[in-house]
Amino acid sequence: MFRNVMPRYEILTDDALQRIERGWMRIVQEIGIAFDHPEALERLRDAGQVVDGDVVRFDPDFVLEHCARAPSEFTLRARNPAHSVHLGGDRMVFAGCAGMPFYREGDIRRDATLADLERMVRLVQAAPELDLAAMPTVEPNDTPLDSRHLDLALAAATLTDKPFYFGALSRENVEDSIAMVRLTFGDTGVDRAPLAAATDGAGGPSLPVTSSLFNINVNSPLRYDERMLEGLLAAAAAGQGCVVTPFLLMGAMAPVTTAAALAQQLAEALTGVALAQLVRPGVPVVLGSFLSTIDMQSGSPAFGGPESAKGLFASGQLARRYRLPWRSGGGGLTSSQTVDAQAAYESQNTMTAAFLAGANLLVHSAGWLESGLVASPDKFALDLEILRVLQAQFTPIGVEDEDLAFDAHQEVGQGGHFLGAAHTMTRFRTCFYRSPLSSTENFERWTARGARDTTARAGEQWRALLDGYEQPDLDVDIRGRLQEYVTRRRAELGD
Amino acid sequence: MFRNVMPRYEILTDDALQRIERGWMRIVQEIGIAFDHPEALERLRDAGQVVDGDVVRFDPDFVLEHCARAPSEFTLRARNPAHSVHLGGDRMVFAGCAGMPFYREGDIRRDATLADLERMVRLVQAAPELDLAAMPTVEPNDTPLDSRHLDLALAAATLTDKPFYFGALSRENVEDSIAMVRLTFGDTGVDRAPLAAATDGAGGPSLPVTSSLFNINVNSPLRYDERMLEGLLAAAAAGQGCVVTPFLLMGAMAPVTTAAALAQQLAEALTGVALAQLVRPGVPVVLGSFLSTIDMQSGSPAFGGPESAKGLFASGQLARRYRLPWRSGGGGLTSSQTVDAQAAYESQNTMTAAFLAGANLLVHSAGWLESGLVASPDKFALDLEILRVLQAQFTPIGVEDEDLAFDAHQEVGQGGHFLGAAHTMTRFRTCFYRSPLSSTENFERWTARGARDTTARAGEQWRALLDGYEQPDLDVDIRGRLQEYVTRRRAELGD
Repeated sequence: MFRNVMPRYEILTDDALQRIERGWMRIVQEIGIAFDHPEALERLRDAGQVVDGDVVRFDPDFVLEHCARAPSEFTLRARNPAHSVHLGGDRMVFAGCAGMPFYREGDIRRDATLADLERMVRLVQAAPELDLAAMPTVEPNDTPLDSRHLDLALAAATLTDKPFYFGALSRENVEDSIAMVRLTFGDTGVDRAPLAAATDGAGGPSLPVTSSLFNINVNSPLRYDERMLEGLLAAAAAGQGCVVTPFLLMGAMAPVTTAAALAQQLAEALTGVALAQLVRPGVPVVLGSFLSTIDMQSGSPAFGGPESAKGLFASGQLARRYRLPWRSGGGGLTSSQTVDAQAAYESQNTMTAAFLAGANLLVHSAGWLESGLVASPDKFALDLEILRVLQAQFTPIGVEDEDLAFDAHQEVGQGGHFLGAAHTMTRFRTCFYRSPLSSTENFERWTARGARDTTARAGEQWRALLDGYEQPDLDVDIRGRLQEYVTRRRAELGD
Repeated sequence: MFRNVMPRYEILTDDALQRIERGWMRIVQEIGIAFDHPEALERLRDAGQVVDGDVVRFDPDFVLEHCARAPSEFTLRARNPAHSVHLGGDRMVFAGCAGMPFYREGDIRRDATLADLERMVRLVQAAPELDLAAMPTVEPNDTPLDSRHLDLALAAATLTDKPFYFGALSRENVEDSIAMVRLTFGDTGVDRAPLAAATDGAGGPSLPVTSSLFNINVNSPLRYDERMLEGLLAAAAAGQGCVVTPFLLMGAMAPVTTAAALAQQLAEALTGVALAQLVRPGVPVVLGSFLSTIDMQSGSPAFGGPESAKGLFASGQLARRYRLPWRSGGGGLTSSQTVDAQAAYESQNTMTAAFLAGANLLVHSAGWLESGLVASPDKFALDLEILRVLQAQFTPIGVEDEDLAFDAHQEVGQGGHFLGAAHTMTRFRTCFYRSPLSSTENFERWTARGARDTTARAGEQWRALLDGYEQPDLDVDIRGRLQEYVTRRRAELGD
């Protein structure tokens, strides 16, 4: 997996960090956060916080103390141990796009289906650039709503052997998903988590482990609804990782100033993290963020712009202050309706900002289109290119004697060229990033080969990726038990 | 003009900086730089450097001492004082694309003409995002070669009132250009430069002034040819600013390792700067860089990739070490043949890197296509969007109490929205960057309006920009003298 050992780009002074910190503290203390769930309110009241109706006013020190119980780094294991990932520190985990109701191939845009969901999972499994499929990759509109979570857990268990990542939409949903995670792993590690430490694949220190991650969205501003809280309580109780993500479009769910949105983001996310720690101290959590704007004339969401990038720089810096793994919003975000230049420059901009900011988890790293309404495999292939370039870009340059290559300059001297220099010959295969998507062909050759633009070439690339997909092995008994579970639960749920 | 007061992104440790410094020092001292011009060799020999044939071996301290005579900041004045710019420090000067032999509108690609050159100059004049037109904007292939520099100086003097920037191709070319600069300003300031200090438009400190800038390319590796040296000597002697730019495609004109290319870049550029200071101490100079790669299979140049971005980060850091204003390569660089997604993500990547690296001068900020072979007004409009976004992105966020907006959170509380909050109402017009090019329209509206992609919208934008172009006033006598000069010199040159 990718380690970002380049410097972080930090735009806030210590004074600014402290002002934003005082901002979130004042919000949780004086305004409070609404928790629409009796168990959550009870737990927080028992822990000494001030509960007034469904609003909880927090002692900021309580929030900080409980957030400090969360591990600053942890392992998210996969059923194929080679695909386990490490969250936190300098690691970056890239997940595919998630939750889009529509699907677009070329010029055809339509409701997404289970077949589309499965296709996107296969693409993530086949793409070495991506660490996991965030579920649901798309919303499978052709499946019954009550049992839909079973379809997607089955896809996540059988079509990929990369880690599990789900949206937490209700207690039932989370508990079924965890049951299927248990069946898939076929061991007791799921329930020992997060306390059983393991050595991560890279030979690093022993870390807490979780077998799945659940994304919990806040109903911003300053509110957790019943279903999300059920999900958070169930996931934390089972020792599964929680990604607590305020989704803030400034102007709608947050004030129009970035500093205020950052304070709100922390007020929401840190109190959710504290609640998870109250349920199960030490449970792995990821501090989530998802900060963008709306067009103030139309009310439409806008992605990939300057406020979003600055929000990312600041969010990363703040997450490090609280020593928590951090989820940036995305990934390759754009408002564009089609896989065009806007889709490219907006996605490049948010993705670069996430690298600069030191994000640990990027959902929507590939395939996001039309402000998150559309999943596109063409965009998926384009985003993989952006990812590859940035992974190479955020790898340090060497400055050893052999990198300084004085001998090459001696060999070539003045006015020559380095094409045949000994230093070049020993390195020419690997010295530069070489793109499988971008073209450097001269005009004549490019024209002779059909003058295909990048989006057309991206269309060929994801089809080739899909052709190369191999379904990962899964024990036949485990597969049978998963199928039985789905059949039984689907009947119980009345679908 | 734009001030980049955000932090610089620095990737080299002190140790790495020192290693690269020792690298260029060893090159200039042990291998030396070829100067194909008797006056240059004589000046360098007289100054105590070791001349062997056309190769000069330098004492690195001599190079450093002479570079230290160059101002770290200076003013490049324009005939319209409101358009004068400040080079160095935290200022960024954006120039349009320059020197492309081909021109492309939509799907039509052809040899560029004088009419195309003039159209591109008008676009730069009309674009508030750009500070100057780097000449020639395109190569006017339909004009006689010997007097072509007169056509472009006339265009630069009459179609725009932004500062003069020329390529220095010969002594004659430079001297004619400076003569026309003198005629345009109609005062003696041109010849007093750079010693007459002026207060810059922004009320900053008094700075040395130049009335034009000349770009001098090195014939890398490690060689200045006769014509470029004539240009450098003539421009420096006349007190005009020199931008000394090694153009390094790693693998061809430089070794395939970035550290080696950086050492070479400094060896070449700093010795050129030292020569300019020898000719006229204190003459304004810009340390140029232009670092990219070739495709090692085809030999084609490649732009917008990871090596180029890292080269920019490091080049900016090194330029600050020598306290010289710094020209990054570009600008919006790409190898793409058309204004597509690749053109967008590569241009966004190089432009972002230039902002992060703290570039002071960006040529090719708008209109570059096909590895610099093609100028495209469609790409021009796209690049302006990238520029606007980055200018907003590299503007700090506020963290004052009014930015933290506690009152807005109090007003809205839990679960509401901020659309009508008082804090929003006082700020909604200006709180976010609002793009004239990118679309956030919903799918139905976008479709109803013709489903135009970004490139089609960019085509409309540059046409509207051109429609709004107004030729800047120029004294009728000055215009007459410029025309007379061109007529006389054209005849003398035999065209």
